[in-house]
Amino acid sequence: MARPTETRRIVLARRPDGAPRPDDFDVVAAPIGETPEGGALIRNLCLSVDPGTRSRLSEGASYAPPLKIGETIDGFAVGEVIESRTSRVSVGDLVATGSGWCEHWVFPGRGYIQLIPHDSLPLSLWIGVLGVPGMTAWFGLHRVAGLKAGDRVLVTSAAGPVGATAAQLARQMGAARVVGTAHGADKTRWLLDQAKLDQVVDYRRSDLAEALRAASPEGFDVLFDNVGNAMIDLCLPLMRPGGRIVISGQLADYNARPGDVRGLANTRYFIASRLRMEGLVVFDDLKAFPEAQRQVGDLIRKGELAYREHRYSGLDQAPLAFCDLFTASTFGRRIVDLAQAPA
Amino acid sequence: MARPTETRRIVLARRPDGAPRPDDFDVVAAPIGETPEGGALIRNLCLSVDPGTRSRLSEGASYAPPLKIGETIDGFAVGEVIESRTSRVSVGDLVATGSGWCEHWVFPGRGYIQLIPHDSLPLSLWIGVLGVPGMTAWFGLHRVAGLKAGDRVLVTSAAGPVGATAAQLARQMGAARVVGTAHGADKTRWLLDQAKLDQVVDYRRSDLAEALRAASPEGFDVLFDNVGNAMIDLCLPLMRPGGRIVISGQLADYNARPGDVRGLANTRYFIASRLRMEGLVVFDDLKAFPEAQRQVGDLIRKGELAYREHRYSGLDQAPLAFCDLFTASTFGRRIVDLAQAPA
Repeated sequence: MARPTETRRIVLARRPDGAPRPDDFDVVAAPIGETPEGGALIRNLCLSVDPGTRSRLSEGASYAPPLKIGETIDGFAVGEVIESRTSRVSVGDLVATGSGWCEHWVFPGRGYIQLIPHDSLPLSLWIGVLGVPGMTAWFGLHRVAGLKAGDRVLVTSAAGPVGATAAQLARQMGAARVVGTAHGADKTRWLLDQAKLDQVVDYRRSDLAEALRAASPEGFDVLFDNVGNAMIDLCLPLMRPGGRIVISGQLADYNARPGDVRGLANTRYFIASRLRMEGLVVFDDLKAFPEAQRQVGDLIRKGELAYREHRYSGLDQAPLAFCDLFTASTFGRRIVDLAQAPA
Repeated sequence: MARPTETRRIVLARRPDGAPRPDDFDVVAAPIGETPEGGALIRNLCLSVDPGTRSRLSEGASYAPPLKIGETIDGFAVGEVIESRTSRVSVGDLVATGSGWCEHWVFPGRGYIQLIPHDSLPLSLWIGVLGVPGMTAWFGLHRVAGLKAGDRVLVTSAAGPVGATAAQLARQMGAARVVGTAHGADKTRWLLDQAKLDQVVDYRRSDLAEALRAASPEGFDVLFDNVGNAMIDLCLPLMRPGGRIVISGQLADYNARPGDVRGLANTRYFIASRLRMEGLVVFDDLKAFPEAQRQVGDLIRKGELAYREHRYSGLDQAPLAFCDLFTASTFGRRIVDLAQAPA
C-alpha cells in the first residue's frame, strides 16, 4: 500500500462559551509530513474524547497551556504503525499514543507512545480502563489516596470511565464500603449490578448531603472526586478524621468562567478532621503504567472489572462525542472508531 | 501553705458575633474540687491565648466541639504542682497543661500534661515556641509539608508565634527562600532583622499577588498558611508543581459566619500543579513533642531562633489579650502572667 499523503484532523475553530458545541470545531485536511529519524507514522484505529480536554479550550491554567485556534484537539488513540524510523516500534505494531483527533499521526520521536501487547483484550481498552481513565483511577487510589483495607470510599461521577474503574478497584483493594453518585436508572442499575457498588446516590437529590450520610453513616475515608468544587464542598463535612480527597477531574467546573466557579467554603474541616486533598495528573506515573495495566488486564480477563463503552463512527463524530460528555444521558467510555482493526 | 479552697476562671458569657469582645467573657469564682486519685492540683503561673479558640466559641465544626455558655475558655498554661496524687508529678514540679483560663486547676489524671525540665529557658516558652505554636510550626513543616532543602517557602501571618517559628525553622531545614506576609513597619523590621526572612510582603497591598510573585519569581514549594481561604486562593496560582499547602490556622475566617466564608475558587491548580493541601492539629504529634522541643530549645540557646512575647498581667486581662489577637497592631506570643515564677 502506498504511503498516504494526506490526512484529516479536528481543530479548535473558536473557544467554547460554556458547554462546548460541535461547531466550536472544524475538520481540516492536511498533508502528512515526513517521518523524522527516530519517529514513526501511525494510522489511527480509534480515538478517545476526554473531559479534561475542556480546560485546554479556554484561556487559563490547566495541566497544559491552552490550545490555540487551529490546533488539533487533544486525545488519545490506538493506532497501527505503518512506517517506522525508530527501533522502538515496527511496522504492524499496535500502539497507544496521545496523537489527538486525527486519522494519521507522525510520532516525532518523543512523547507518549506505548506498545500494546498482543492479547485477547479489545484494542479500545487501551484508551479506556487500560489507558488514561483506568490509570487515573489506579494511581489516584494507590498513590494519591493511599487507600487502605477497611476504608469507606465515595466516588463521584461513578458511572464515568474513571469513576467506575475507581469504585471497582477500591473494592478490590479491600474498601469496607463503596458508594457512588450517578443520575438515572440505567447508570444506577449498571453500577449496582455490574460494578457491584454498595450504594448509588442520585446527585440531583435536593437532600444529597443527607443521602450520602445515610449511605455511609460512619463517613468516608476517601473521596475520589471527578466533579468539582460544589461536590467536594458538600462532602467535606462527611469525611472521617484523616480523610483523603483525590481531585481527579472537575467536570462541573470546566465550563465555568473563572469568576463563576463556586469556591470551597467548608475548609475548616481540613483542620477539624485532618483532611488532605491532592490533585492528580496521571502522566506523572507513566513509568508504572505497565505493571498497573497488567493487573487491571488480569481483573478484566477474570471478569472482576466491568467496563462500558459508547461508540461513535468516523473522525467527523469526534466533536459530537466530546460535547456529549457534558450533556448526554448515555454513559461509558466514548470511543470514536476510525477503521476496522487489522486482523 | 494551706490548700487553697477557691479559684477564679474565665468562662464564656455569650457567643461572639464576629470579632470577640472582652464582655463576651465573665470572671467567676468557684470552689476547687478534690484532687482525684491519679490527679494533681496545679497553681497556674502563666496562660496563653490562642486564635484557634475562636472557632470553639461559635456553633459548628472545629477540632473539638463548641464550648457551652459558662464553660472555662480553652488555653494552655504553665503551672506549679501544689498537691499530687500521682507518681507522674511531684509537688514543686513545673508542668505545661491545657488547663484553660484559670488560676488553679485540678488535673484529672488524663489529658495533656508535660513536665518542664529545669533549664535556663524562660517558663513562658513552654506555652510559646516550645508549646503549641512552636510545635505547630515544627510538625507542620516536618510531617505535613515534608519540607526539603531547596524549597521556596511562603509563611503567612509571619509575625505571629506560629508563623515566625515556621519561617525560621524552614530556614534551618534548608529552604532556599523564605518569604513572609505581615503588616506594619515594626513587624517587618523584626522579621527581617531578627528572624532573618528573605523578604516580607505587606498583605494589605492591593497588588499582593504580584508582590508575592516578585518576592519569589520561581514560585513557592510550600505555603504555610495561618490566615484562611482568601489568602490560600490568592496563593494557589503561585505554587510550584508538587507544592504543599499546610492549613495551620484560619485567623481571618474564624470570625466569619458560616455563609460568609470566602471559598477557594482556584482549585484547578490542584490538578494543573499537582498540589497537596492538608490540615493540622498538633496534638496528633504529642508523643514526638519532647524530641522536637529539645531541638527547638537548642536553637534558642544558640541564639538561632528569635521569638517575641507580649505580656498581660492577671487573669482578668485574659479576655483582652484574646480579643487583641484579632485587632491589635502589637505582635508576639500573648502571655498572661498570673504570678511570679517560683525561685
